Amino acid sequence: MSNDTTGLQLRSLVTKGGELKISLQRVPTPEPGPDEVVVRVEAAPINPSDLALMFAVADMSTAQVSGSKADAVVTAKIPEKLMRAMAGRLDESMPVGNEGAGVVVRAGSSPAAQALLGKTVAILGGAMYSQFRTLKTVQCMLLPEGTKPSEGASCFVNPLTSLAMVETMRLEGHTALVHTAAASNLGQMLNRICIKDGVDLVNIVRKPEQEELLRKLGAKYVCNSSSPTFMEDLTKALVATGATLAFDAIGGGKLAGQILTCMEAAAVAKMKEYSRYGSTTYKQVYIYGGLDRGPTELNRSFGMTWGVGGFLLTPFLQKIGFAEAQKLRDRVVAELKTTFASHYTKEISLTEALQPDAIATYGKISTGEKYLITPARD
Amino acid sequence: MSNDTTGLQLRSLVTKGGELKISLQRVPTPEPGPDEVVVRVEAAPINPSDLALMFAVADMSTAQVSGSKADAVVTAKIPEKLMRAMAGRLDESMPVGNEGAGVVVRAGSSPAAQALLGKTVAILGGAMYSQFRTLKTVQCMLLPEGTKPSEGASCFVNPLTSLAMVETMRLEGHTALVHTAAASNLGQMLNRICIKDGVDLVNIVRKPEQEELLRKLGAKYVCNSSSPTFMEDLTKALVATGATLAFDAIGGGKLAGQILTCMEAAAVAKMKEYSRYGSTTYKQVYIYGGLDRGPTELNRSFGMTWGVGGFLLTPFLQKIGFAEAQKLRDRVVAELKTTFASHYTKEISLTEALQPDAIATYGKISTGEKYLITPARD
Repeated sequence: MSNDTTGLQLRSLVTKGGELKISLQRVPTPEPGPDEVVVRVEAAPINPSDLALMFAVADMSTAQVSGSKADAVVTAKIPEKLMRAMAGRLDESMPVGNEGAGVVVRAGSSPAAQALLGKTVAILGGAMYSQFRTLKTVQCMLLPEGTKPSEGASCFVNPLTSLAMVETMRLEGHTALVHTAAASNLGQMLNRICIKDGVDLVNIVRKPEQEELLRKLGAKYVCNSSSPTFMEDLTKALVATGATLAFDAIGGGKLAGQILTCMEAAAVAKMKEYSRYGSTTYKQVYIYGGLDRGPTELNRSFGMTWGVGGFLLTPFLQKIGFAEAQKLRDRVVAELKTTFASHYTKEISLTEALQPDAIATYGKISTGEKYLITPARD
Repeated sequence: MSNDTTGLQLRSLVTKGGELKISLQRVPTPEPGPDEVVVRVEAAPINPSDLALMFAVADMSTAQVSGSKADAVVTAKIPEKLMRAMAGRLDESMPVGNEGAGVVVRAGSSPAAQALLGKTVAILGGAMYSQFRTLKTVQCMLLPEGTKPSEGASCFVNPLTSLAMVETMRLEGHTALVHTAAASNLGQMLNRICIKDGVDLVNIVRKPEQEELLRKLGAKYVCNSSSPTFMEDLTKALVATGATLAFDAIGGGKLAGQILTCMEAAAVAKMKEYSRYGSTTYKQVYIYGGLDRGPTELNRSFGMTWGVGGFLLTPFLQKIGFAEAQKLRDRVVAELKTTFASHYTKEISLTEALQPDAIATYGKISTGEKYLITPARD
């Protein structure tokens, strides 16, 4: 075990000159306060939301690496027209990594902190692509005896987001769900939750192999957006399930609007009388990701009773309150090796994360290619 | 006064063959039940929402008129790709006209019906482009002594929609408003309400003369979307007013997204720390019209805390309930000749409404060109 008073930390910087720089910095480990602990970060996943902070809006096809190992610096150009969106983070070196897991190597004086010493914990709070993190005890979730850090590294973002989708469905009075990019790690998790909870889920994917994968995992409704019969297939699935709420990871293009169009067709099929305002059935698409960065195109061929909006986990958890959020967290721990299991293509160290080959692969955000960073390993 | 047992009624028909046909039919006047009255319709406005039903999605540049006077038939082609949206009304001859005003010429036996005999009433309930309408007494709003039907013809759609915007602002926790196509009849009404109620309103128009018109009417914030400084101007107005709710009559194109982008810029300007998810300020655009039938394009450069949706008056009134809706109706009657006054470019009879020149003018839905149909006049 290395000295824990300093450690490497991955940093992302956007310069005023329009460049992205990713590098490793050696940073001191803050001394833990009474109710804090120092965690040696053993595993931290690369989620799409992490990449958005790490790569900013840079054109990664222009990426170049100078230096080597811990001194490597990745540089890439940011298209000028996208610089306006970067105003808030210019020339500020930012740590990355929403979540992870590791072992508590030092603890403050409080009983809550001392109780965690030597334990394996899942952690949330940013800057997880670091060798050491000083965190409040409430940011740590004690993992059951025998859980490896790699098994607990993705306890928060995907599990809580997929649970939040089902909770939102209930809170907003819908009875079934639609999900896009549905073969993703998160999509597979949502599929397992819905099967377990008896909630109808319409999975939208864009490749036959993703369709097959989900069917093997027990998915009943899978529609392929690349198929010429997509609109008919989706409408049929929506008639069968009555789903009027969708969560969309794609964001750009016509898909969100197509979902609303098919939801409306399913609703109109049940109407007895024509109304030029369309059905009175409320239809909602929440965009929670931006796999397609292009504009969202809504042709509005779905009446007047609809909504499209952004969806983020943290405000959702704040809205339902601590007690309800804790129930969701408890469920994640209880079903960590089943419903909420994550699978990784590859484990890479912090220095490996700065290598061009690795960036080219994990940067694609393609289904089934999920990387785990292991900061504690040099 | 003509015999009131039958009367002309304007009808819109979409055929399976892809044609729109507008004609006048002579229809029997239903006998009034105990709680019903027969109204001789003296005045009914042509609102954009009426045109959408009347013209369906036809290409009115292909319109041709055969026959003359009461036997005239307007025929126009419907683009094939738009026929799917017409499925619900194929080969069904539909009456048109949401609202109007007239004189009660017969009444059922109930005291409520008898009390209206000979009175001038504002009426809501469709099929107003008719010489006679049999209506329930609750569909009639008694107009104050001395009110002409032409003054009371637009009591519902624009007045209640503009009031609903201000009410929605309050109910959903916003404190100021943005409105597009703001020089419209409805926009001028909203401007008067906001001035009277002390609500900040950001008016978006697209022509200098509309800008000037609104400023003359006391509008403080007017932004021209055709100006090269539009985004800056709008952001400044949003910083000044704190408006986070917009009502958009345009629908298509980039405007809804631009409004959200400027709202986000105004919110980010107040933030102390960068968040890649953008501000936590909730921003909403309701689309209530479709002056641009093209797709809505959202570039999503406005964080994750936003919503876009459809807005319709009737569901809003149902949501707030009868008592609250009645307060709004009472206010319309009380301020009918001031806040809620409508102005018309021209009055036309039902037969004149089928003439090519008239169609070409009222069909444009251009600001300041509002027509009033006078069905009682031959």
